[in-house]
Amino acid sequence: MARETRIEEVLAGAARLFARGGFDGTSMRAVAAATDLSKPGLYYHFADKDALLFRLCHDAIARVLAGAEAAVAAADGPAARLRAVIGVHFAYFLDHPDALVVLNRERRRLSPDRQAEIGRLERRYLDLIRTVLRGGRDGGAFRRLNPTVAAFTVLSVLNGLDTWYRADGPLPPAEVEAQIAAILTRGLAAATGDAP
Amino acid sequence: MARETRIEEVLAGAARLFARGGFDGTSMRAVAAATDLSKPGLYYHFADKDALLFRLCHDAIARVLAGAEAAVAAADGPAARLRAVIGVHFAYFLDHPDALVVLNRERRRLSPDRQAEIGRLERRYLDLIRTVLRGGRDGGAFRRLNPTVAAFTVLSVLNGLDTWYRADGPLPPAEVEAQIAAILTRGLAAATGDAP
Repeated sequence: MARETRIEEVLAGAARLFARGGFDGTSMRAVAAATDLSKPGLYYHFADKDALLFRLCHDAIARVLAGAEAAVAAADGPAARLRAVIGVHFAYFLDHPDALVVLNRERRRLSPDRQAEIGRLERRYLDLIRTVLRGGRDGGAFRRLNPTVAAFTVLSVLNGLDTWYRADGPLPPAEVEAQIAAILTRGLAAATGDAP
Repeated sequence: MARETRIEEVLAGAARLFARGGFDGTSMRAVAAATDLSKPGLYYHFADKDALLFRLCHDAIARVLAGAEAAVAAADGPAARLRAVIGVHFAYFLDHPDALVVLNRERRRLSPDRQAEIGRLERRYLDLIRTVLRGGRDGGAFRRLNPTVAAFTVLSVLNGLDTWYRADGPLPPAEVEAQIAAILTRGLAAATGDAP
């Protein structure tokens, strides 16, 4: 198995344990056992539990950010750009629910330098959403709201998914995503706006 | 000083410590020191740290729920009812930001029975919001969205406040609340709806 694939497996296993038992409640021994590694094997990849948590948080926010940046660049118009961010975040959440639980709940357990690095990536993500909202506001597609308040409203809805969404719920995921996107896009749209 | 007032002070001090240092990172000794109690004095009021955390979480969700129930009963029409819930939750957050941080972040540290009791209150709060949204949908004021998806969207925005709102931010709190309420109310309103 390719080394990167194996590391992805280890990360997925660690995310599952951290999401269920919490960072403090999960030992490196438990991560090693759950991912079929020896403890030295696990420590070969990650110097300590903080390094493992950092990699999980970093991968999650960096991938959502990179995906959202690409999707925004490819989208045409403010409503489509907002819809693109929601689509990327929702898709990452569906594929990596544990990773976003860990990012949301456990990143305060990181050492200060690493917490600051995650904070810088989250700031870039916030700035991307603010830029989309500000552009829509200045062009007249979105109402005249404070872009920071509006961006955190959008982010709160996306970051809240892990507290309630269940893959085995009654609605198909695409329908849940469409309803959330409709509430936010309509909520931000100018009265004569281009939202669905 | 009246006993209840003193207990409120102790709870506020404990909430501040738990919100900043985490439940696991805060000792009963630290709570006693920060609230000018002896350790036996603190243990006289709360049998252990779990009992203290439960009281904090219980007060927060029970007060938001009771306030929201009363405000919904007094409001006229679906949009006003939704607006009333947002107003009660926002006002409680402004007055007790630490209590809502503790409820959101630390309630998973509670013993299972107590966590279940908090879960029952949160379920009643969710049901209240769902009932408001379903009523608005069935009466034609709100669009035809799944009430559970819509209710968790509203709750995510309210529960997300503690991750970003700062009392010393550039907008007055009433303006932040109005903008959030406008996004949600407009986002849920039928095309011909009664939202602002």
